[in-house]
Amino acid sequence: MLIQEYFITRSDILEKALAKYLTPSDEITSQLDEAMRYSVFSGGKRLRPILFFATYEMLLERKNINRLERLLPAACALELVHTASLIHDDLPSVDNSEERRGIPSCHVKFGEATAILAGDALITKAVEILTEIKNPRISLDCIRILTKAMSTRGMIGGQAVDILSAKKKININTLRYIHLKKTGALLQAAMELACVIYDAEENISITLGNFALNLGLAYQVVDDILDEVGSFEVLGKEPGQDSRNYKATYPSLLGLEKSKKTAEKLLRDSYNLIKYMKNNDILIEFVNMVKDRLP
Amino acid sequence: MLIQEYFITRSDILEKALAKYLTPSDEITSQLDEAMRYSVFSGGKRLRPILFFATYEMLLERKNINRLERLLPAACALELVHTASLIHDDLPSVDNSEERRGIPSCHVKFGEATAILAGDALITKAVEILTEIKNPRISLDCIRILTKAMSTRGMIGGQAVDILSAKKKININTLRYIHLKKTGALLQAAMELACVIYDAEENISITLGNFALNLGLAYQVVDDILDEVGSFEVLGKEPGQDSRNYKATYPSLLGLEKSKKTAEKLLRDSYNLIKYMKNNDILIEFVNMVKDRLP
Repeated sequence: MLIQEYFITRSDILEKALAKYLTPSDEITSQLDEAMRYSVFSGGKRLRPILFFATYEMLLERKNINRLERLLPAACALELVHTASLIHDDLPSVDNSEERRGIPSCHVKFGEATAILAGDALITKAVEILTEIKNPRISLDCIRILTKAMSTRGMIGGQAVDILSAKKKININTLRYIHLKKTGALLQAAMELACVIYDAEENISITLGNFALNLGLAYQVVDDILDEVGSFEVLGKEPGQDSRNYKATYPSLLGLEKSKKTAEKLLRDSYNLIKYMKNNDILIEFVNMVKDRLP
Repeated sequence: MLIQEYFITRSDILEKALAKYLTPSDEITSQLDEAMRYSVFSGGKRLRPILFFATYEMLLERKNINRLERLLPAACALELVHTASLIHDDLPSVDNSEERRGIPSCHVKFGEATAILAGDALITKAVEILTEIKNPRISLDCIRILTKAMSTRGMIGGQAVDILSAKKKININTLRYIHLKKTGALLQAAMELACVIYDAEENISITLGNFALNLGLAYQVVDDILDEVGSFEVLGKEPGQDSRNYKATYPSLLGLEKSKKTAEKLLRDSYNLIKYMKNNDILIEFVNMVKDRLP
């Protein structure tokens, strides 16, 4: 199956489930509901839920879209948490991004106060959705995985270190920490969730979690490189933003050549972690997608 | 037992548990950890956890501090969610409060970006703590109760309506909605959590939830009255803030006398809901605490 077809078919069932979960509850909170939907349906690539589907279907040893129904709560929870983090990251006091995916950020459209609450509400909704999973043990394990990925040891911690590092001299270990936590933690959670729902063995979950961490870091290193030498088309946003914001990047700390070598090594490491697994074609496509962005 | 003694002894075990849960995880995120601890340990009265303990001990039909160990995860989760809501409410784009409990607000002390993340991290931590409850069914029920109380149908929804209502003419039903959701929802959750952990019957949980909603609304109506006619000492903050911020209050919509009558009626309704229950002395003291603030 072509990865494009895989993305289209899996996105399709995800969008329907997201629309269902984000049905407005009450007229009186309609502006808040609208802000949540605005950001969730603003053209995200759904990478995390689709990586999660792909991992589950690899474990299942067959691609079968009809078997994905029970995965929808966790798939939607992943996307809602990711969206919440983007809304809060874009705020003026954090990254101050007025645009996201080519349209005004949530706070530009709805005001800062509503954007802050929309982020809070999406985090809350993500957890609520996970409590709907029928099997209580799996439901709790999913909540544990997601909250760990969000916590001060995960995404929120990475963002906190990122904020403190702005306009400061940091070393490569700190930059690696930021990328691993801000991007890697939730990708790792996506694959761990698939393992928990499939009931995979512990060592498989650890291996796939490491695959996700390597892939997430590779993605960020490539992003750093594109910020230096890429075009708007490949990067999906204006290049040169990091240096203008005095943000440390892999090229600014290691130079361009060594950064490229680092990205290639991370992609090779990702590939090596899954190359002996059966039905790994979509996961390999994820590695190739990142590799193809490398200039 | 005097309510003062009850508060001191129960606060004491709560503080120890909060300190344990908020032990910093990693040097690299120390500023975020510090911001979380700063707001949690800034002199809050711990009303929600103590109402939760009192409800459980009433159901247990005896006051026994040694039986409260298993309640600590939910007690701490309640306080962390409450603190998160205060941090986000105080932000410049929301209520713009530079002080809280007589000291600088979290964002004044640590910056807005860290304050936003500290709120997010406290919400996440609250859910993580609830997953530690040994019995999976109870753990999941607690997460359901807490996330419902926080959601767009609860606290966050109330805050969203409050923001939209600022400097607008609203009616008494909208003001009632804001108070019920912003304050009542989490108090209701406190009592529902006690019922779930004790395994009380459904109708008891509904009755006690209604008690909490009435009490929370009464507290807010009294607060509105004190904002108009109270002193700094009784109100705990500078009076007159609401009218200066063009915020609707019960007295501004109903007049002072009718507001007092409303508060008295709500307190009577609260009392009537629990008056036939055994061992209700601490809950009655909660009603009296609110009544005593009425000028």
